[in-house]
Amino acid sequence: MYVIEGEKIIHEYLRSDYLLANIYATTEWLAENSALLKKKKLPFTEITERELQQISSLATPNRVLAIARIPEGALQATPESLVTSGIHLALETIQDPGNLGTIIRTADWFGIRHIFCSEDCVDAYNPKVVQATMGSLARVHVHYTVLNVFLQKIPLPVYAAVLEGENLFTQTLPKDALVLIGNESKGISPQLARAAHRKINIPRFGEAESLNASIAAAVILALFRRG
Amino acid sequence: MYVIEGEKIIHEYLRSDYLLANIYATTEWLAENSALLKKKKLPFTEITERELQQISSLATPNRVLAIARIPEGALQATPESLVTSGIHLALETIQDPGNLGTIIRTADWFGIRHIFCSEDCVDAYNPKVVQATMGSLARVHVHYTVLNVFLQKIPLPVYAAVLEGENLFTQTLPKDALVLIGNESKGISPQLARAAHRKINIPRFGEAESLNASIAAAVILALFRRG
Repeated sequence: MYVIEGEKIIHEYLRSDYLLANIYATTEWLAENSALLKKKKLPFTEITERELQQISSLATPNRVLAIARIPEGALQATPESLVTSGIHLALETIQDPGNLGTIIRTADWFGIRHIFCSEDCVDAYNPKVVQATMGSLARVHVHYTVLNVFLQKIPLPVYAAVLEGENLFTQTLPKDALVLIGNESKGISPQLARAAHRKINIPRFGEAESLNASIAAAVILALFRRG
Repeated sequence: MYVIEGEKIIHEYLRSDYLLANIYATTEWLAENSALLKKKKLPFTEITERELQQISSLATPNRVLAIARIPEGALQATPESLVTSGIHLALETIQDPGNLGTIIRTADWFGIRHIFCSEDCVDAYNPKVVQATMGSLARVHVHYTVLNVFLQKIPLPVYAAVLEGENLFTQTLPKDALVLIGNESKGISPQLARAAHRKINIPRFGEAESLNASIAAAVILALFRRG
C-alpha cells in the first residue's frame, strides 16, 4: 500500500479504474465527492482538519488523503512478458524522487504504460515520487527487476541514452523499442551499455555538461513518438 | 551577488569566463586548484571544514563555496535589444526553484543564451535554483522584465506552449523564434496568450493531465533545434 495526497492527484485516481483501499477526508470534501464515491463503491473515513494535519506529510494538507494498493502487475515475476511491441522505458539507478516522479508523469503523457526500473532505483511509492507523478501512478505501472537479465529476454531493440551516442535528431526511430535512461550522475553502467543495440544522444548546441535524467527521458520519448 | 556551492558547479564557473567575487575553500581544495586560481587571478579565502559547515546551506557541504556576481547583462534596461535572431526563451510565473534551475540547465544544453522571465518568476539566484542549474548560470543570462511589453518589442515570432495549441510534431518550426512557457499549474495568462503569434502543444498519447513546465520547455526547445 502507499499514501497519496492532494485533491488534484486524488482526482486523477478517482477518474481512473484504480481501486483505493481507503480515503480519509474532511466533511466538506466528502460532501462534494459523495456521488463519485458511491458510484465507485469506495470506502472512506471522515476526519477533521486537525486529524488530517496529523497524518499528512505535506506542509499544507489539502482536505483528503488516500491509501492506494500497489497494483499486482508491479509485482509480477515476468515483467518481460509485458514487452512485445510499442515504446517502453527502462531506468537504471534513478535515485532522485522528483526525477522518478517526473519521468512517470511524462511517460503517462506519451502513452507509456510500463516502466522497468533497476532494483536500486528509488521506490516509486515513496511520497515524494507520488507527489511528482501528479496522479500518473494511477495509470503507469512501475516494475523493479534485474535489468541486465530483463534486457536479454525482451524482443525489442534497446536504445540507450549515452553522451557519446549517435545523434538522436538524425536517426530513423522504430515504432517498437525500449528506451534505457541511466543514473543522474553516472549514466548507464558499462554492463547495461553493452546490452544495448543502439546508443543515442541528444545533440548539444551549448555548453551544459549534461541534461537532467527526466529531461533526457522526455526529449527521447518525444522524438520516438514523433517518429 | 549570489552564493554557489559544490565542486561540480564551481568547476563549471571556473571553466567559463565568469569572474567570481570570492572563493571560500578548504586547504585541500585550494591546493588542488591553485594553478587555475592563479591563472584566472581569482580571490580566495582558506577556511576550515567547520567554517564551511557554518556558512553552507547544503546538508553535506563539499569543500568549496563561492560568491558570484550577477552579470550586468541581467540588469540591463532593454532586454529586447538582445533578441534579434535565433531561438530564445521566455517564462511566465515559473515559481518552483527546481523547475527554473532545470530550465536554465536545459537552455544551456540547447545553446540558448538568454531567458526572459516575468517579474513574478522565482529568483534565478535563489540557492535552490542555482543548485538545479548545475553551473549553467555561468553561461545563460536570466532577465526579469514585463513580458507583455517585451513581447511587443521583439522582432521574432512568439510561440506559446498551451494545451489547446497546434501539434508541435507536425509544424515546420522557424530558425528564429521566442518560445513562451507558462506557469506550472495555470499555464500562460490570457493577456500573454493574445500576444503570441502561434500556439503550440506537445501531442498527448496517454492520459496525464499536463506536463511539468521544465519538461515542456525541453521538448519544445529540442524540436526547434531539430528543425
